[in-house]
Amino acid sequence: MAPPKAFYAIIAGVGSGTGRSLALRFAKAYPVVLLARSPSSYADIVSEIKQQGGEALGVSADTSDPAAVASAFETIRAEMEGSRGLGLAAAVYNVGAGFGIKPFLETTASDLDASLNSNPRGLFNFAQSTLPSLLTSVPTSPHPPSLLITGATASVRGSARFGAFAAGKFAVRALGQSLAREFGPRGVHVAHVVVDGVIDIPRMSGFDVNGGVEDGKISPDAIAESYWHLHTQHRSSFTQELDLRPYVEKF
Amino acid sequence: MAPPKAFYAIIAGVGSGTGRSLALRFAKAYPVVLLARSPSSYADIVSEIKQQGGEALGVSADTSDPAAVASAFETIRAEMEGSRGLGLAAAVYNVGAGFGIKPFLETTASDLDASLNSNPRGLFNFAQSTLPSLLTSVPTSPHPPSLLITGATASVRGSARFGAFAAGKFAVRALGQSLAREFGPRGVHVAHVVVDGVIDIPRMSGFDVNGGVEDGKISPDAIAESYWHLHTQHRSSFTQELDLRPYVEKF
Amino acid sequence: MAPPKAFYAIIAGVGSGTGRSLALRFAKAYPVVLLARSPSSYADIVSEIKQQGGEALGVSADTSDPAAVASAFETIRAEMEGSRGLGLAAAVYNVGAGFGIKPFLETTASDLDASLNSNPRGLFNFAQSTLPSLLTSVPTSPHPPSLLITGATASVRGSARFGAFAAGKFAVRALGQSLAREFGPRGVHVAHVVVDGVIDIPRMSGFDVNGGVEDGKISPDAIAESYWHLHTQHRSSFTQELDLRPYVEKF
Amino acid sequence: MAPPKAFYAIIAGVGSGTGRSLALRFAKAYPVVLLARSPSSYADIVSEIKQQGGEALGVSADTSDPAAVASAFETIRAEMEGSRGLGLAAAVYNVGAGFGIKPFLETTASDLDASLNSNPRGLFNFAQSTLPSLLTSVPTSPHPPSLLITGATASVRGSARFGAFAAGKFAVRALGQSLAREFGPRGVHVAHVVVDGVIDIPRMSGFDVNGGVEDGKISPDAIAESYWHLHTQHRSSFTQELDLRPYVEKF
Repeated sequence: MAPPKAFYAIIAGVGSGTGRSLALRFAKAYPVVLLARSPSSYADIVSEIKQQGGEALGVSADTSDPAAVASAFETIRAEMEGSRGLGLAAAVYNVGAGFGIKPFLETTASDLDASLNSNPRGLFNFAQSTLPSLLTSVPTSPHPPSLLITGATASVRGSARFGAFAAGKFAVRALGQSLAREFGPRGVHVAHVVVDGVIDIPRMSGFDVNGGVEDGKISPDAIAESYWHLHTQHRSSFTQELDLRPYVEKF
Repeated sequence: MAPPKAFYAIIAGVGSGTGRSLALRFAKAYPVVLLARSPSSYADIVSEIKQQGGEALGVSADTSDPAAVASAFETIRAEMEGSRGLGLAAAVYNVGAGFGIKPFLETTASDLDASLNSNPRGLFNFAQSTLPSLLTSVPTSPHPPSLLITGATASVRGSARFGAFAAGKFAVRALGQSLAREFGPRGVHVAHVVVDGVIDIPRMSGFDVNGGVEDGKISPDAIAESYWHLHTQHRSSFTQELDLRPYVEKF
Repeated sequence: MAPPKAFYAIIAGVGSGTGRSLALRFAKAYPVVLLARSPSSYADIVSEIKQQGGEALGVSADTSDPAAVASAFETIRAEMEGSRGLGLAAAVYNVGAGFGIKPFLETTASDLDASLNSNPRGLFNFAQSTLPSLLTSVPTSPHPPSLLITGATASVRGSARFGAFAAGKFAVRALGQSLAREFGPRGVHVAHVVVDGVIDIPRMSGFDVNGGVEDGKISPDAIAESYWHLHTQHRSSFTQELDLRPYVEKF
Repeated sequence: MAPPKAFYAIIAGVGSGTGRSLALRFAKAYPVVLLARSPSSYADIVSEIKQQGGEALGVSADTSDPAAVASAFETIRAEMEGSRGLGLAAAVYNVGAGFGIKPFLETTASDLDASLNSNPRGLFNFAQSTLPSLLTSVPTSPHPPSLLITGATASVRGSARFGAFAAGKFAVRALGQSLAREFGPRGVHVAHVVVDGVIDIPRMSGFDVNGGVEDGKISPDAIAESYWHLHTQHRSSFTQELDLRPYVEKF
C-alpha cells in the first residue's frame, strides 16, 4: 500500500463542549470523523463543519464496548483509508462520561464501572483501533501523528467523594503515559491534557464559578488551540502533559 | 451495641510474600482474618500464626467479585464482631494480581480487565465492606483504625508496555487518596504504600536484581514493619503515602 | 499614564541556543530586549533580528546581581516604556548557568551558589523588575502578559550528583508556581517549561545523544514555538507547566 | 581506625518544637549532639535529656555559615568520634528558619536569602560535614546510618505569597533526593519528611487551626516516632519520602 499523502482526524467524545471545538479546529486542516454514542451528539457539528466548507463524518459507537469500537473502525478505515487513501493524522480521546461526586459508602459498583468503562476501557479500545493507523502515517504525515487525551483535575488528585471518577481518570493518565513511552520512539505523539476547571459550555451556563468573573470558565475553543499546538509540535520537542485552567482558578 | 474493647485485623491478598509477613506482623497484636481466593494461599499461614500462639481465620473470596466479598464479610462480621464483639482495627488491601508486561498492541481487553478487577474494583469492594467496621472502631481503638493499601512503581509511573497494570495501580492510588480525604477527618487512617522493587520471596528467588547484591530485594518482613508503623501513627500525624525500595534500587 | 497600545518583549539568557530562538520568535511580533551578561552573547542575535526587519536592543546585566538588574531595567523602561510608550507583553527567563555534575562530597559551596545565583536569585530579580510592567499591560495587551520560565529535567528530579543544580532548578519551579498563583488572577500568565533533553545547538554538536538518531536533540526553534503558544493562550485556559522532550528520549 | 561499635546522633535545628522531640527520641538510643544558633535553643533540652539519664551535648553554629559548621563539626568529631570512638548513626536536618508569607512585590532579596541560607545552604553544609561520618558507620551501625530531612507543605507546593520560602524548601527536597540516589547504594539512608500542618508547640498555642479540634495540630512527639521508624528501616526497604499531617488537615 502506498503511504498516505493526505490525512484525516478522529475525535471521540463530541457533544456541545470541548469535542465540538476540537472537531471544528481539526476540520480546518483535515476531514474529521466524529465518534459519539448517538447521532444527536454529532449531527449538528457535522452540519456546522460542512457549512464552513470542511468535511465531517459522524459515526456512532460506545467507546467502552470493544466490539462496537472495532465495528466502527472497520467502517471508518474502509471509508477514509480504503476508498480515499487517507492516513490518520490525529486521534483525540475526549470521552467525558463517568463523572460523579458521592460519599464513598453511597457509591455503587456500577458508579465505579461507569467511570472505568468510559475512561481506561474506552481509551484502551480507541487506542487499539487508532494506533496502527497512526503508525502507518508516521513517514508521510506533515505533523507527527498524534493521540491526544483529555484529562481532568481528577487525573492527578483523588479528592474526597470523587473516588470512582478519579480512579477512571488516573487510569487514563497511566495508560497515556505508557503509550507515550512506547509509541513516542516510533514517531507517534501521545499527550495528555489536564483540564482543571469548568468548561464554558451551554450545559454549565447556570453554574457560577470563580465568582462569575469574565473568562472564569475555560473556553473550549481555547482548549482546542492547545490540542492543535500539541499536534503540530516538532518530534524533537514533544509535550507529554500540560494543564489548562482559567487565570482565576485556585490550584 | 457497646463499643468494641478488643480488635481484629484483616489482610486481603495473602500468599507467600508480603501478605504472609503482614499477617504475621499484625497477628502479634490482633486476631487476623486472611482473605485469599483459595485456601491454598492462606492455610499454611493460618497454621504458622496458630503455632506462634496467635489467632487466625482464613476466608476464601475473590475481591473483584462484589457478591463474594459481601458474603465473605457477612461471615467475618458474624464471627468476629457479632459473636466475639471485636472491632476492626486494621484492614490491609494487598491484592497483587493483574501484573503483566506486554506491547500495547498485543495487550487484550481481558488483560486490562484483570488489572482493573484486582486493583480498583477489588479495593472498592474491600473498602465498602471494611470502612463501616473501621468507623465503628474509631472511638475505642488503641490506634487509629487503618485502611492500608499496597501499591507499586506502576502506581506512579506508566512505563512502556506496563499500560494495563499501571492503569489498575494508578486507579487504586486515586481511590486511596480520595478515601484518605473523606475518612481521615472521621478518624480512619487511609495510607498507600508504593513498593518500588522486587520483593524477596521464594517465587522471585531465581530473579536476579540489582546485580544480585545482598538485600537488593525488599524483605517482606521489613515492608510489614512499615505498615505496622503506619497503623500505629498518632492521628495528629498521619502519613498518606510512602515509598519503599532497596538501598541499591535505581529510581 | 495612558495604557500602552504597542508592546515589547524581554528575553533574559540569550546565547547560541534556546535564547536565540526565543528572541527570533518573539521578534516576529514585538521589539525585543535581549539580556545577557555580555554583548558577545547578544550582539549577533541583535544583528540577525535587524536584518530580518525586526527591532532588538541588547542590554548587559548579570541577573543574579540585584543592583545590575535594577539598573538595566531603568535603562530598558526609559527606552521602551518612557520614550516609546510601549508596554511589556512578555518576559522570558531563560538563564541557564549553574549546571554541573559532581559527586556531592566534591561539590563546593560555590558550586551551590552558582546554581542558586543564576536560578532562584536571578529569577527573583528578573520577576521583581518585570512584573510591575507586565501588570500595567494587562488591560490592553493583545495576549495576556506573560512571564515564561525555562526549567530542565533537574526541575522535577534530583538525580545523583546533580544536587546543586537540582536545588537551583527546583527553587525556580517553586517560585514560578507561587508567582502563577499570585499573578494569574491579576491577568499575568506565569508558566514553567521543563526542557527534558539535550538541545540541538552548536555547543552540543559533538554530544551524541539518543544513539545519534535524527531529531534526538531538541530543536531550539521548536521550543520557541511552544513558548509562543503559551504566550498566546487565552486567559481562560492558561498552562502553568509543560514538558518538552525528543520523541526518542527515555523518561 | 577501628570501626565504631557505639554510636551517636546529631539533630540540627532544635528549639521548642520538633527538634526537641527528635532529640528526646534519639536520646533513648544514642548520645545526641544538639546543634542550634545559640545555647538558649538547646540548653533546656540538654538538661531534660540528662535528667532522663541520657547524654546530650549542645553545640552552637549557624548552619548557613560554612566556616561555623566546619568548626562545630571539628569539635563534635573530636569529642564524639576521636575521644570516645563513637560512630555517627543519624543526622537530622530540622532547621526551620526562612518562613515568611508576603506578596511577591514586597518580598526582598534578603527574604529570599534567608530562605536559601537556612534551607539548601544549611543542608548542604550539614550534609558535607555528616556524610563522611555516616559512611564510616555503615559496616557496623545497628541501623542504616541515616540523614533525615524536615520538609514542609512548601516543599511540594509553591503557594501564592510563599515564593521565597517555597524556593528554599523545594531546593532542600531536590538536594535530599539527589543525596538519597548517591548515598543510598553506599548504605546511607537519606529521607525527606513533608510536614503538612501546624505543629503543636507552645509558640503555636494561640494559632487556631482545623477549627480548634483535638489533635488538629501535629504532635512533635508523633513526628519524632516517624523519624525513628525511618532510621530503623531495613536497608532493603528504605523510604525516601513520606508526608505527615493531622487527620483533619485539608490536602
